[in-house]
Amino acid sequence: MAASDLDNSELLGALHAIVGEVGVLQGADMAAYEEGARYGQGRARLVVRPADVAQVQAVVRLCAERGLALLPQGANTGMVGASTPDMSGTQLVLSLSRLRSHCEVDVANRSVVVDAGVTLQELNDQLEPHGLWFPIDLGANPSIGGMVATNTGGTRLIRYGDVRSNLMALQVVLMDPPGEVVELGRALRKNNTGVDWKQLFVGGSGAGAIVTQATIQVHARPAQRATALVVPASDEAVMELLQAFERDLGDWLAAFEGISGNAMQAAIDHVPNLRNPFAPDDAPEFAILVELEANAAAKYSQLDLQEALNSFLEDQFESTIVNAALGNATELWHLRHSISEGARALGKPIAFDVSVPRSRIMEFCRKGRELVARDYPFLTVVDFGHIADGGVHFNVIWRKDAPEQYDPAVVQRLRDAIYGMVVQDFGGSYSAEHGVGPHNLTYYQRFTPPLLQQWADGWRDRLDPRHLCGTVDLGTAKN
Amino acid sequence: MAASDLDNSELLGALHAIVGEVGVLQGADMAAYEEGARYGQGRARLVVRPADVAQVQAVVRLCAERGLALLPQGANTGMVGASTPDMSGTQLVLSLSRLRSHCEVDVANRSVVVDAGVTLQELNDQLEPHGLWFPIDLGANPSIGGMVATNTGGTRLIRYGDVRSNLMALQVVLMDPPGEVVELGRALRKNNTGVDWKQLFVGGSGAGAIVTQATIQVHARPAQRATALVVPASDEAVMELLQAFERDLGDWLAAFEGISGNAMQAAIDHVPNLRNPFAPDDAPEFAILVELEANAAAKYSQLDLQEALNSFLEDQFESTIVNAALGNATELWHLRHSISEGARALGKPIAFDVSVPRSRIMEFCRKGRELVARDYPFLTVVDFGHIADGGVHFNVIWRKDAPEQYDPAVVQRLRDAIYGMVVQDFGGSYSAEHGVGPHNLTYYQRFTPPLLQQWADGWRDRLDPRHLCGTVDLGTAKN
Repeated sequence: MAASDLDNSELLGALHAIVGEVGVLQGADMAAYEEGARYGQGRARLVVRPADVAQVQAVVRLCAERGLALLPQGANTGMVGASTPDMSGTQLVLSLSRLRSHCEVDVANRSVVVDAGVTLQELNDQLEPHGLWFPIDLGANPSIGGMVATNTGGTRLIRYGDVRSNLMALQVVLMDPPGEVVELGRALRKNNTGVDWKQLFVGGSGAGAIVTQATIQVHARPAQRATALVVPASDEAVMELLQAFERDLGDWLAAFEGISGNAMQAAIDHVPNLRNPFAPDDAPEFAILVELEANAAAKYSQLDLQEALNSFLEDQFESTIVNAALGNATELWHLRHSISEGARALGKPIAFDVSVPRSRIMEFCRKGRELVARDYPFLTVVDFGHIADGGVHFNVIWRKDAPEQYDPAVVQRLRDAIYGMVVQDFGGSYSAEHGVGPHNLTYYQRFTPPLLQQWADGWRDRLDPRHLCGTVDLGTAKN
Repeated sequence: MAASDLDNSELLGALHAIVGEVGVLQGADMAAYEEGARYGQGRARLVVRPADVAQVQAVVRLCAERGLALLPQGANTGMVGASTPDMSGTQLVLSLSRLRSHCEVDVANRSVVVDAGVTLQELNDQLEPHGLWFPIDLGANPSIGGMVATNTGGTRLIRYGDVRSNLMALQVVLMDPPGEVVELGRALRKNNTGVDWKQLFVGGSGAGAIVTQATIQVHARPAQRATALVVPASDEAVMELLQAFERDLGDWLAAFEGISGNAMQAAIDHVPNLRNPFAPDDAPEFAILVELEANAAAKYSQLDLQEALNSFLEDQFESTIVNAALGNATELWHLRHSISEGARALGKPIAFDVSVPRSRIMEFCRKGRELVARDYPFLTVVDFGHIADGGVHFNVIWRKDAPEQYDPAVVQRLRDAIYGMVVQDFGGSYSAEHGVGPHNLTYYQRFTPPLLQQWADGWRDRLDPRHLCGTVDLGTAKN
C-alpha cells in the first residue's frame, strides 16, 4: 500500500491506537518540530511522540508496512537540517522527546543507561549527586539520541573525547525486520567480539534506524578549574604554546579555544554586559581561551590549579604569549559563547564547521581570511574554534551594511571555495562536528569516494530497504 | 582458475615477479609464521612478504584472480589463532613485516602515519625523541596492523583508551575491487562526514581486507610516575578504592591491576629473582597494582606524584586497604608481568580473556573461583586483570601434578561454563581484548545474535566476495 493510500484520518486512528492522543501533534502544534536550529524548514505530515520502546516499535512497524517516510528527531538542535522534515508534507516526524524514563547510573562502573529522549542537561542533573558528569560541552541542549546521530564533540574533546569514544552500547529499533529491537554492545570498556556494529549508527544522521537508548561512559566531576584568555605572540607561537601545555600541564588541559579579533569584537559590540578583557585600545587580533580541569584533590597533591596556570603563563611571556587575562571563568566563557549572537547581530552568517590537522589550523585560518578578503571583500570572517582538536567554526558574515545584496549564488561559490580549500589543500573535513544533513549533502557527494557511497548503498539497503527513515541518503547520488 | 590449478612453481614465479626472491619464504623458513603465540598451528602454502603497498596490491590481485586464500599476518603475537594458517596447507601467509618504511610523526598534531608492519616498540622508539608515545601497554610487541585488527587495549586503557579511540585513519587494500587502495579517515580529531567505515576494520581479525597503514593519535610522555601494590580490605572495598582514586587522583590514574593470591604465588614460586613485596608470612589473597602517571611538570604544580599517592593511601588505611608496598615500579611491574610465566610453570593454562561491568568484577571472580573449586577441584585458578576497565584474565591451570590427565573434553565443558557465566549472568564479554579467531569462534557463533551474523555475511560478501582473506568468518555459521 502506498503512502497516499492511507488517508490522514486513518493514519491518525492508527497512531492514536499506538501512542494515545497525547502522543500525536498536528497543525500549528508541529511548528517547533518543523524548523531546525540553523538550517532546515519543512512540513511534517504529523508528529508522533512515542513514550516507550514498544510504542517506537509499533510506529516503525506501521511505517514499514505502509511505506510511510519517517524522520527521527531528538531535541531538534542539529545544525545541518538532518532533524527537520522536507517540504513534501509526507514525512512523519518521530520525536523521541518523550522517550526518557530510563536514566540508570552505575556509579562504580562509571556508566549510565539512558533513553534517547533525555537531554544532556537532564543527564547531567541526574549524574551530579554521584559526583559524575557527561562532559561533552556545546552551545545547545541536545538529546542523547541526537548526540549519537551527530557524534557530538564540543569544546572539551581534547580531555574527554567525543560521543563515539564514550559509547559502550546502543539499543536500536530497526526498519527491517520492522520494529525489531537490537542491542549493540554492553556496559563494557573492553569487548572485542567481531565487527562493532554500533559504530555505524554513530554520526549516522538518524538514517536507516531509530536509536532508542545508549549506554555511555561518564566521568568524575572536576574538583578545580583554572581559566585564562591569552594572546599568542604570533600564529607560529600558537602550536608551540599548545605543545607546551600538553607537555607541562597536559593532565588538565580541557579547552584551548581560538577566538579571532573579529569574533571577539562582534560579541563585545553586540551582546550586553560583555566587556573587553584587555584594555579597550588593546584589542588582540587573536586570543586563546584556555581551561584546565583537575580531579586532583588539593588535599593530596597541594595543587592550586589557577596558580599552576599562572606560573606556567609567566614563563610563556616573551616567548609564545604577549598578553593574558586570568581567572573569571564565567566572564571568559560568556564571551566565548556570545560570539554566535554577536555574529548574527552583524548580519547573515554563512557557517563553516570544518577541521584540519591542528598543526595547520593557523595557516588555514590565514589563507581562508585571505581568500575571503580577495574574492569577497564585502564579507566579514568571524572565525573561532577548537584549536587543540583542529576544529574551526570559520563563519563568514554577510553584513547588514554590505553594499551587495545577499545572493545565494555567491554564497554557493564561497562554500565551494572554502570547502575545497579545507578538503583538498589541507587534508581537512567539511563537517567537523555537525554531521551530514540536507544542508551539506552536496559536499558529502562531492568529497566521498564513490566506493564508500556504494558501501553506504549496500548498508542502507540492508538496514532500511525502502529508504523510509531519515532525511539524508549517504549512498550514491540518485537524483 | 581454482587454486589447485596453479602449481607451486607457477605460483612461486608469479610471486617472485612481484616481491622478488627475498619476499617469499618456503619450507622450514615458514615455521615462525605457522605457529601462533598461544593458539593456532597450521601449514602455509607459502609466506609472501611485500615491501610496499604496490606489492601488497599486486599480491592481492593475484590471489583474487586465482582464488588463492590469503592470511594477513603482523607480528604473529595474537592470542586467538587469527594470524596463523589452518592445517590445509593452501593458505598464503601475507606477512606485513616488511611493510615498514613509513613512520611520519606530525609533532604538533600529535599524530603519526605508520605502516602496518612497524611494531609498537619501533613506533615508540621513533616517538621518544619528540617527547611522545603510543601508550598502549601489553605483554608483547605486536605490529600496528595487528593492533588494529585486534583493537588492542592493555593495562593503561583507563587513561589512554584502546586502538579504536586513538585511530584517526586507515589505509586498506581491498579484495574487491581486487587490490584497490582505499583511505578511510584523515589525520583529524573531528571528522563527521557520514558512516565511519574504518570502524569496521578495527577488531576485524584481519578478515576481508588488508590494513596497510594507520594514522594514530599519540600522547605526551609522562614526566612522573608513582606505583604501589595495595591489599584491599575486602572485595567490596575494591570498588570504593577505585572510585576514591578517580575522584581524588583521577587525572593520573593509569593502571589499577588486580592480582590474585594464586597468581602472585605462581610468579614468586617459579620466576627467578622475584620476591614477595609483603612479609613472607603475609601473602595477600588479592592485591592491586596501582600506577599514576603525570604530564604535570613539577615546576608549575609542585607535584610530587609518589608523595600524593602515599598520602592518599595513608587515608585509605583502615577503610579500603590493609597493606601497601610502595614505589619500586620496576619490581612491581616485573611481578605483574611474570604471572603468565609462573602459571605456565604450574601446568597447562586454559585462558579466559573476559570482561564484565567493572562494578561486578570482584563478584564474577569469586563466583568463577567457586565454580572451578566445586566442579573442577583438580584445576587451579590463576586470575589477574584490569579492574578499572573490567577486563580479567581468568586463567585456569591444569596442574602438572593434577591426579587427572589433561582432557580436552573437560576443558571444553569448563570453557562453556565460564563463558556462559560471563555472557549470560554478568552482561560480560567472552573476548575482552584478544579479539575473535579460530580459538573462540564457537563462542562468537553462540553468543552473537543471528541478525548480526547476517549483517556480517552481507559485509563480507561485499568486501571479499569469495571469502579468501583471513581465517575467521564472522557471518552465519555454514559448517
